[in-house]
Amino acid sequence: MEPRALLESWRGRMGRELDAAIGFWVRHSHDPEHGGFFSCLGRDGSIYDDVKYVWLQGRQVWVYARLYRTVPRFRRPELLEAARAGGEFLLRCARVGPGSHKAAFALTRDGRPTKVQRSIFSECFCALGLDELGRAMGESRYRREARALLEAVVHWVREDPTELGCPTLAGATPHEPLAVPMMLLCLAEQLGDGDGAGGALAELEEWCTQRLLCHLQKDGSAVLENISEDGKELPGCLGRQQNPGHALEAGWFLLRYAQQQGDLALAAQAIEGFMVRPFQAGWDPEHGGLFAFQDVDGLCPTQLEWSMKLWWPHAEAMVAFLMAYAHSREPALLHLFDQVAEYAFKRFRDPEHGEWFGYLAQDGKVTLTIKGGPFKGCFHVPRALYMCEEILGQLLDEPLEQLPHQTTGADE
Amino acid sequence: MEPRALLESWRGRMGRELDAAIGFWVRHSHDPEHGGFFSCLGRDGSIYDDVKYVWLQGRQVWVYARLYRTVPRFRRPELLEAARAGGEFLLRCARVGPGSHKAAFALTRDGRPTKVQRSIFSECFCALGLDELGRAMGESRYRREARALLEAVVHWVREDPTELGCPTLAGATPHEPLAVPMMLLCLAEQLGDGDGAGGALAELEEWCTQRLLCHLQKDGSAVLENISEDGKELPGCLGRQQNPGHALEAGWFLLRYAQQQGDLALAAQAIEGFMVRPFQAGWDPEHGGLFAFQDVDGLCPTQLEWSMKLWWPHAEAMVAFLMAYAHSREPALLHLFDQVAEYAFKRFRDPEHGEWFGYLAQDGKVTLTIKGGPFKGCFHVPRALYMCEEILGQLLDEPLEQLPHQTTGADE
Repeated sequence: MEPRALLESWRGRMGRELDAAIGFWVRHSHDPEHGGFFSCLGRDGSIYDDVKYVWLQGRQVWVYARLYRTVPRFRRPELLEAARAGGEFLLRCARVGPGSHKAAFALTRDGRPTKVQRSIFSECFCALGLDELGRAMGESRYRREARALLEAVVHWVREDPTELGCPTLAGATPHEPLAVPMMLLCLAEQLGDGDGAGGALAELEEWCTQRLLCHLQKDGSAVLENISEDGKELPGCLGRQQNPGHALEAGWFLLRYAQQQGDLALAAQAIEGFMVRPFQAGWDPEHGGLFAFQDVDGLCPTQLEWSMKLWWPHAEAMVAFLMAYAHSREPALLHLFDQVAEYAFKRFRDPEHGEWFGYLAQDGKVTLTIKGGPFKGCFHVPRALYMCEEILGQLLDEPLEQLPHQTTGADE
Repeated sequence: MEPRALLESWRGRMGRELDAAIGFWVRHSHDPEHGGFFSCLGRDGSIYDDVKYVWLQGRQVWVYARLYRTVPRFRRPELLEAARAGGEFLLRCARVGPGSHKAAFALTRDGRPTKVQRSIFSECFCALGLDELGRAMGESRYRREARALLEAVVHWVREDPTELGCPTLAGATPHEPLAVPMMLLCLAEQLGDGDGAGGALAELEEWCTQRLLCHLQKDGSAVLENISEDGKELPGCLGRQQNPGHALEAGWFLLRYAQQQGDLALAAQAIEGFMVRPFQAGWDPEHGGLFAFQDVDGLCPTQLEWSMKLWWPHAEAMVAFLMAYAHSREPALLHLFDQVAEYAFKRFRDPEHGEWFGYLAQDGKVTLTIKGGPFKGCFHVPRALYMCEEILGQLLDEPLEQLPHQTTGADE
């Protein structure tokens, strides 16, 4: 297909798929009684458990508020009202106790905590959702809470982790998961005012970027999920773990930051090191699709699901390669976008009920028919579809002589 | 095949397979420097990580000591010496701190703790291994430590869980996993003196039995993995979870106890409720093999590996159905044993390097080529092969007019 026709075709498909996904969550996930969202939904949207996962609450608030604020056809009061009720539910229930920003991982339907993780992500996704809700509502109190949460998280990560509650053990090697600087870069970008260099969060963004680059190891051939606190490879399985989808997601976070900074060298590194090479290593030559986990030395991973195909790495890869193509206008990157998106639309899509399946066997067969669960909610699919539709629209709106290295501004 | 010929054939196959499995662990897992065992072993036995998992240390000590003590061809000094070095490693390193029996989950190669679980199983598998080591060595200090560990665990389970370190959360429903009474029944049987009723551990065995029977729910059609503390069904996914392999393992624990007590009604309940029905529900009609997890209402489980075929449920099912056949002489139970054992030997066995693969996709293809890892060590495969060989030998040693309801005594 001629490039422009390909872009046109994908813009239409992305938009229709986004409508179907949001339709699914609006029909099935809202809790009118307590606020917040059910995420344990079967293929047809039936609720199979009423646990409320805090990660997924914050993420769905973000999706609804972002779509309401930036996409005219989603400027619907029911979306904003559901986002507001979700945000209020988090403000009322997420904190485990007074005097600390530590948030629960899971809550009962009416908001009592059932599980707490000793990590930063519940708090981060609360902050993500509340900041965007504040922007959509024009209410500063949500954004103030988001800022306070971010400050608490940065304190735990960079100064003192005591409040997270992890025991100190004589044999444990402190290490940095890729997710930590990724999450903080994403949050700094969300909470910042889009004013580029010099904003209050600029130092945090720069720190995250440097930390992310430390995960690019083995002469730039691998993005390691875990490295030592001083940025070195770790021994054993932990040190050899690569997650192609995570690398690709980090890649578009880095590319977006590089574009904002006008840093072409960083942009090139993001595309080559965090997108193209992890994709080449992680794409299953036999059945297609991205592996969930890999061992960078080619050994067998210990994660039982390592060879399964999960929805979110494919959603992230679509965003990554489309953003990279918009940046460089390299046809090979458009081809990779098309390859991943065709696989994802063929394998994960559910034309009957909307929203994607999440979990396929290596051969591409759906093995879990659920649409949502403890780790899948209203986030990766709609975020990717929204971002792809935006980037495609910008590419198609350009005059015919396309400019290389133009920033896309897809997610500001 | 005529039944006696079938039993003869399986006795030979079990014995040869046990030799191959033990050969694998002896060749590859011993740490001559620090004592204890490597469990992260690839297909050919190569060490891909030197983490030492406490569950697997205790289990391997048990297997080596048990084989040394009870199977003449394994009365080899190298087995006892490796078991002793493993026991000493646990005594020296497993405890996280002084003044508590709390043990680590994972240790560095030289024995420094890297992870601690807020559950009872590290301590239980230490006790299991140390008691059997004490029996094999004729040294009471190992058995005294095992008894002290069991008393600590029983205190945590039945009186005060504070020392386990789980937070008290307003929304959390206290629940009992099937594994807790299973583990304690197994330990009480191990640590007891085989004197049946009236032994010091008799009350604990009776308590475990009653708790296990509470997991048989839905009019006896399902063995639920989790129930409330007062023995009732729980709402949501947690309450609907069934693990066929776990039910079958609990089944032979219960059958062995019933035989010791001469309780024929309990034996019948163990066979029908914990073996036959979970097997019928859990056997994959399309590809064969037992599913790892199920939802008893037929919904999709949320565990990513639910449809995978794991080695240990098949090992446990072999023991369960052979013990049940030896008890009842019901040909259908021998047929089920043969069905499971044929599947397991065809799919999990590695004729080249010994010991079984652990993880297959639903269709039976090996998806993880490792022989050992964080949860697979020298335990389920050799224990099952040893027990099956013993039971088969007893059956074949009987006079030709076979007695019904004879106890097997396979594991005393």
